Amino acid sequence: MSSNKPSLPKGTRDFSPIEMARRNYIFDTIKKVYKKYGFQQIETPAMENLSTLVGTGGDESDKLIFKILNSGDYLAKADEKALKEKNANGLTKSIAEKALHYDLTVPFARYVVQNQNEITFPFRRFQIQPVWRADRPQKGRYREFYQCDADIIGSDSLLNEVDLIKIIDDVFTELFQGKLNYTVSVNNRKILQGIVESVGEQDKFEDILVAIDKYDKIGEDGVINELLNAQIPSDSVLKLMSIIINKTSYEKAKSNDKYSNKPDLDLTTSSLKSLSKLIGSTLIGDKGVDELEFVFEKLKELGVKSANIKFDPTLSRGLGYYTGTIIEVKVDNFPSICGGGRYDDLTGKFGLKDVSGVGISFGADRIYDVLLDNNLYPEFEGDSTQVLFVNFGEKEQDYCLPLLFQLRNEDINAEIYPDVGAKLKKQMTFANNKNINYVVLVGSDEMASGKLTVKNMKTGEQHAFTIEELIQELKK
Amino acid sequence: MSSNKPSLPKGTRDFSPIEMARRNYIFDTIKKVYKKYGFQQIETPAMENLSTLVGTGGDESDKLIFKILNSGDYLAKADEKALKEKNANGLTKSIAEKALHYDLTVPFARYVVQNQNEITFPFRRFQIQPVWRADRPQKGRYREFYQCDADIIGSDSLLNEVDLIKIIDDVFTELFQGKLNYTVSVNNRKILQGIVESVGEQDKFEDILVAIDKYDKIGEDGVINELLNAQIPSDSVLKLMSIIINKTSYEKAKSNDKYSNKPDLDLTTSSLKSLSKLIGSTLIGDKGVDELEFVFEKLKELGVKSANIKFDPTLSRGLGYYTGTIIEVKVDNFPSICGGGRYDDLTGKFGLKDVSGVGISFGADRIYDVLLDNNLYPEFEGDSTQVLFVNFGEKEQDYCLPLLFQLRNEDINAEIYPDVGAKLKKQMTFANNKNINYVVLVGSDEMASGKLTVKNMKTGEQHAFTIEELIQELKK
Repeated sequence: MSSNKPSLPKGTRDFSPIEMARRNYIFDTIKKVYKKYGFQQIETPAMENLSTLVGTGGDESDKLIFKILNSGDYLAKADEKALKEKNANGLTKSIAEKALHYDLTVPFARYVVQNQNEITFPFRRFQIQPVWRADRPQKGRYREFYQCDADIIGSDSLLNEVDLIKIIDDVFTELFQGKLNYTVSVNNRKILQGIVESVGEQDKFEDILVAIDKYDKIGEDGVINELLNAQIPSDSVLKLMSIIINKTSYEKAKSNDKYSNKPDLDLTTSSLKSLSKLIGSTLIGDKGVDELEFVFEKLKELGVKSANIKFDPTLSRGLGYYTGTIIEVKVDNFPSICGGGRYDDLTGKFGLKDVSGVGISFGADRIYDVLLDNNLYPEFEGDSTQVLFVNFGEKEQDYCLPLLFQLRNEDINAEIYPDVGAKLKKQMTFANNKNINYVVLVGSDEMASGKLTVKNMKTGEQHAFTIEELIQELKK
Repeated sequence: MSSNKPSLPKGTRDFSPIEMARRNYIFDTIKKVYKKYGFQQIETPAMENLSTLVGTGGDESDKLIFKILNSGDYLAKADEKALKEKNANGLTKSIAEKALHYDLTVPFARYVVQNQNEITFPFRRFQIQPVWRADRPQKGRYREFYQCDADIIGSDSLLNEVDLIKIIDDVFTELFQGKLNYTVSVNNRKILQGIVESVGEQDKFEDILVAIDKYDKIGEDGVINELLNAQIPSDSVLKLMSIIINKTSYEKAKSNDKYSNKPDLDLTTSSLKSLSKLIGSTLIGDKGVDELEFVFEKLKELGVKSANIKFDPTLSRGLGYYTGTIIEVKVDNFPSICGGGRYDDLTGKFGLKDVSGVGISFGADRIYDVLLDNNLYPEFEGDSTQVLFVNFGEKEQDYCLPLLFQLRNEDINAEIYPDVGAKLKKQMTFANNKNINYVVLVGSDEMASGKLTVKNMKTGEQHAFTIEELIQELKK
């Protein structure tokens, strides 16, 4: 066998035990909240038919899909022309029929259509699984990462939006423990349409969206340039910018705040009203404003725990499938940690028309980094080994084994150092590195008396315990 | 957009909410036991470099690996010769550098070598993830399925084997609740070597292994034919068969047993002794017998809860990497539901020599089927929505919303039917289909009195509760 220096594909990672404990803490928190709101878990396979995935998110998205080579003699059915011309793009379909899903929304839409007769609508489902994207890896961006999605499908009610924002509030109240400011930006695609209509530039809707979506990255001048380059007349650009600058002033007001435990909701409804005046009345714009007002009113009545909820008329989250509410959650200095919105025709591609859905997705990997940078993880004690029996020799080992199983039968995580005659120092280092709380030392004295020497690895204290006393101590 | 009848790739499946609840029950049980024995969880990516995976399980295994097509213009770097000759096999390496892992053992070996300086040995890790195999799909065999692996690496001690068999005993005692017989077959590769040496056929070791491994499938005559076809002299075949038939007699003795709660261990040690006599003394065979005797003795001293542990000299589990103990768990009429063994040089491929490991893997998908067929799942009540507020209209909805959040803040899973004015029958059907325990009906009377009408969906009984009384009722 050849020796093979091991490495991982670009953009992928292993998770060590401590990383897993932290990740499970995030997943478990999100799961618990999802269940509290009546969501049920499903899973879909990592692989879908390529035809299911392509054409749902545009050409750029299609390029991000990892394709799986057909098994066996995959060249037998290959597209001859593409093969001869060395046209990779043209060849793919004929040699790779399967692919890895790049999000959980498209597989969910496929699931809903395929199981529509078994599902009771409105269907609240959540799904926590990895997704894969052939993106250029960079800090905080991976080719394999976990999404934690919740969607409600088959209901137009804006109460669903209220629930989703309350879920965000619950999750980050628990994860951030009131120690970190975060902003939930909310918009409505219909307001965006209204803004564009009010300046008379419906034909340039997509160009305008792309430009103002970049506001946070390229600033005022950048957006103006993009708009002018897209052949938008300068008076329309000015009008559009006045709306964006209006937004900026809210941002400035906020950024002066120190962190306070009182979440901010008042700003949102007033800013919504002033926008309403500013854009004048269009049918679609008014509908968007009405929808958002309902959501904000309900949130105000019910109250939020820690979320700073902000209306942001520039928020569009790409040109994707959103048709109503748009939601994005940010913490200073980090890219979006949660996002979502309403889409009115996701299942249309699979032959099921006019089913409205609304959902959010927590980005577990970014939340991981936020919690780590801000020192917000709890200690994960009960999870790992609590007791190690040191192994002094065969006689001592035989004495300890039944005691070890007595602990395990009491659901106490415990182990014995398996190798007879390993040096004490090595065994103690093992206990230290594994963060084991108690080490039990049994030699001839202990075997004679039945009193075990138990060392508390945190305090360094030693006690003599019978096994029953040790169990009591651990169950405290 | 074209309408696209949705389907899934062959051999893959969706998991519905009830299926997820059952699967999580299996995973959680296994996880809890693994932790009790001091194992720590890790995860590795779905994708590995193809070079990491190939050549570890033989040519047949290599064919089962799903390869991932390189991104972008993958034909630019394609092997020209293979392309011209339409040699798919030869081309693969140059257009697919990544692949999906087909088990969790090889990625674990890669992980250990890559992180050897951070790991404290002996390292007890567990890993619960899907694996992918381009196998022919059939009943109970999927192309994407979950494995639940636990391995100890960096320790020769046979106490690790004892722990793994005790883990199997703990897991199936909990999952089968004493209502299902299962057999833990144990062998040692060294005994197999001893048997083959004792008949003087060392050169034919692999042929003999392949033949006797099929005993359960093709029977006595089949094995004899295979051995003769492999040019093994008939006197050697006779000697080999006497050992196998010896095994058969144990099987017959067992199959007459009715299910009893007293697990069977005596048979194993006596059968081991009689085998020892039968094969005569070879150095390697004696070592194998000694190893197994140690494991059986310890298990006898510590006792088992429900496992029928059996020595099976024909068990080899393929030609793979096992070098010592071999373990396999079976339930009548099902293929293996758990298996494992010791391997002395798994990390050698990656440049780390002489590190011994031993592990087991639970097949979650087969265990799923066994529990389903035998009606062994508990009810999963607390997990789903407990309370539904019926939505009679806007006024009622506004009255119910704060009550709904009062329940949620008490960690009670609850929801309100989101669509105002939906027919009561539709809302009750929704509650029924989702297995919701309590439905809260609020009309004008209830709003006036503050006493909610609460219907218990199991008993059909109705009660008038204040929200506080309902919370008390639910917390019982």
